[in-house]
Amino acid sequence: MFSKILVANRGEVAVRIIRACKEMGIETVAVYSEADRNSLPVALADERICIGGNAAAESYLNQKNIISAALATNAEAIHPGYGFLSENAGFAKLCEENGIVFIGPKSEVISAMGDKDTSRQLMQQVGVPVVPGTEVLKDVEEAKKYAKEIGYPLLVKATAGGGGKGIRVVAREEDLEDAFHTASREAESAFGNGEVFLEKYLTHVRHVEMQILADQQGNILCLGERDCSLQLNKQKVLEETPSPVMTEDIRRKMMDAAVLAAKAANYTNAGTVEFLLAPDGQFYFIEMNTRLQVEHPITEEISGVDIVKWQIRIACQVPLNMKQEDIRLQGHAIECRINARSTGRVDFLHIPGGGRVHFDTALMQDTVVVPFYDSMLGKLIVHANTREEAIRRMEASLCEMVIVGVETNIEEQLQLIRSKIFQKGNYDTLILDKILKKG
Amino acid sequence: MFSKILVANRGEVAVRIIRACKEMGIETVAVYSEADRNSLPVALADERICIGGNAAAESYLNQKNIISAALATNAEAIHPGYGFLSENAGFAKLCEENGIVFIGPKSEVISAMGDKDTSRQLMQQVGVPVVPGTEVLKDVEEAKKYAKEIGYPLLVKATAGGGGKGIRVVAREEDLEDAFHTASREAESAFGNGEVFLEKYLTHVRHVEMQILADQQGNILCLGERDCSLQLNKQKVLEETPSPVMTEDIRRKMMDAAVLAAKAANYTNAGTVEFLLAPDGQFYFIEMNTRLQVEHPITEEISGVDIVKWQIRIACQVPLNMKQEDIRLQGHAIECRINARSTGRVDFLHIPGGGRVHFDTALMQDTVVVPFYDSMLGKLIVHANTREEAIRRMEASLCEMVIVGVETNIEEQLQLIRSKIFQKGNYDTLILDKILKKG
Repeated sequence: MFSKILVANRGEVAVRIIRACKEMGIETVAVYSEADRNSLPVALADERICIGGNAAAESYLNQKNIISAALATNAEAIHPGYGFLSENAGFAKLCEENGIVFIGPKSEVISAMGDKDTSRQLMQQVGVPVVPGTEVLKDVEEAKKYAKEIGYPLLVKATAGGGGKGIRVVAREEDLEDAFHTASREAESAFGNGEVFLEKYLTHVRHVEMQILADQQGNILCLGERDCSLQLNKQKVLEETPSPVMTEDIRRKMMDAAVLAAKAANYTNAGTVEFLLAPDGQFYFIEMNTRLQVEHPITEEISGVDIVKWQIRIACQVPLNMKQEDIRLQGHAIECRINARSTGRVDFLHIPGGGRVHFDTALMQDTVVVPFYDSMLGKLIVHANTREEAIRRMEASLCEMVIVGVETNIEEQLQLIRSKIFQKGNYDTLILDKILKKG
Repeated sequence: MFSKILVANRGEVAVRIIRACKEMGIETVAVYSEADRNSLPVALADERICIGGNAAAESYLNQKNIISAALATNAEAIHPGYGFLSENAGFAKLCEENGIVFIGPKSEVISAMGDKDTSRQLMQQVGVPVVPGTEVLKDVEEAKKYAKEIGYPLLVKATAGGGGKGIRVVAREEDLEDAFHTASREAESAFGNGEVFLEKYLTHVRHVEMQILADQQGNILCLGERDCSLQLNKQKVLEETPSPVMTEDIRRKMMDAAVLAAKAANYTNAGTVEFLLAPDGQFYFIEMNTRLQVEHPITEEISGVDIVKWQIRIACQVPLNMKQEDIRLQGHAIECRINARSTGRVDFLHIPGGGRVHFDTALMQDTVVVPFYDSMLGKLIVHANTREEAIRRMEASLCEMVIVGVETNIEEQLQLIRSKIFQKGNYDTLILDKILKKG
């Protein structure tokens, strides 16, 4: 096992990784920006090195300084957490070149899965469903032919499109020709490129992702799904597992697809395969996240598997010591992301407690919330035997939480947890944006 | 279900009960002494009533004021927590007489199980093993006859004995006559009563207790054991489950005995049957605690059963919705009691976190620790898949915990967790006292 790991991140995920290392008897090196000098991960780590100024580009994205810090402290491996350099193939390669283990998949896998077209093609090759669509079309006749295969409603999309331009929803065959020409003309005039293709128009879809663990010996485990449909401006707000709409049949198929995807990608370490799940039970690969996910703890709660510890073990070539049939997903877990709406000093902090409630955070009494990084203060996570009990537990915990000195979204999370939409479980990826527009 | 419950306690257990009520949609009334005016349970409850001065006799033991508070607030039930009035049959009866549900067993059951002789006789009647012993003996000849049955080593004990007087350890038959006369003479001269009896001398015993849940419909569940052998001056210091020396065979027998004991006592609600476990695997009933136990959370961790919620449901005549075969005990849980060694204001508080770690406490930033009550500040509880992982998790959590302004036993707990004795699991009820005397 590694004797020392450098944690190339900040905030709650740095704390999460350092705690895992402490339990494994591994020493830790915290790297930090000027602004984070007095932060919890810096206090918890065995060694600490300032790697630059407050801007992420100067510190947490400063590859050269991070590698230097690892070399200077004899850290054998770097855990990148999420965000920052976690999906940067170049950084993974730089680690490899410097004889430092990057805790994640190999750089070429990060690279391949980071490219949407490459990963989409790979998935199609192995039979993992992707959102049905076409290559660039020659003319309307070709569009009509493919449209029959894809089915209506569908989207005519310009390859050069963006910002809503060069895109048309087509509900019926008789509207296809018009839409084809309008979208093409619009894109031509806006972007100088009139090329269009077709894509199935999925409505009321949910964002459901599968957690994968793959060791270097070729064993792959799937730890079940997370429903991350509740998003505001494409940012996840609240995640839960199991998905309230998941059936045993769909879960088995989606888990099989996730394992197939990981196998096709020669994937190692922890990863997440993201799908869109349509109301008819069909699901479609979107992308693979080649890193630890913010919402990983809800999977840990229901599976009893410590994902971060396994990331470290796998990076150290330890094989998985369990098989798929050993994985039992029990109860229901929910995560609410608690975000800052302002900066400032935390004058009073009361974190809710009790069994099966925890708040993953780097906040302490007197912590100063700075404006330079992501606004997430922490993740409130509850686990219970049933979804109903988990909801009640989350509600009680949100009510109990007190953060004085910084404005937060606790009140909005409480409204969401108490809403009929959430309680019924009948939501999709656009519902929060819709509610916001109405309100 | 009840709509309002009065919590007749303070500190962490009051918080525990209030949180359970919030999750169940039940309103709560906190009662408090002058000193506890600004405490967490008082802040969390829906209503609050000061019931008297700082001395427990004036407040938390003040039966009349507590009943008045319940009547004044229309609370339908009283949860007594542990300590204070929780095993007071008279108080349970007073509740019954006032039409208030006492959340616990019936007053006559508390009364019967509170009497050591009555409960010992009851257990003997139904075949639950008690520490083998005799009634008062007529003479040495009778002693010799019974000694053969009990086996050596044994104790000659004076009925009037105390403080080590009138008690003799007898290792071999040839020493019995001498010991009989010495103990008898010693007791005669010290207490004016020379009556003696024999009791099996148990060495290297462990304190192992079984958690019971019994509903009002006659269903009884056993949620497995807790090993509470690590005691200092008869005060529990650290508890774990499963017991590191438990075998499947002994567990099954001890669980059966615990269920038999509960059945014999006509027991309802949560209760704990305490046994001494000898190195040969034999175990002996000591007593039944007719209340919630301080260390109940470790059982909740491994069983997934919320004991406090079930106490409330059972008191409301809800039948248990699971059977013994549904109970699966998973992983390993440890509790360290964090005690104050001084009074004072908590100037800085950092509670360790992360998955499967929680600190049951009423401490907050700026809480003043007062000298009037029990010195326990909270209970640090960890759960993990294996005992080894739980030990590492507890070690890391104890290292992370910071309480500034009050002296605590955190450092001693850390030493204990790191000791070979604990890590090997090979300890008994006297080991901490022995270590203390040596040191």
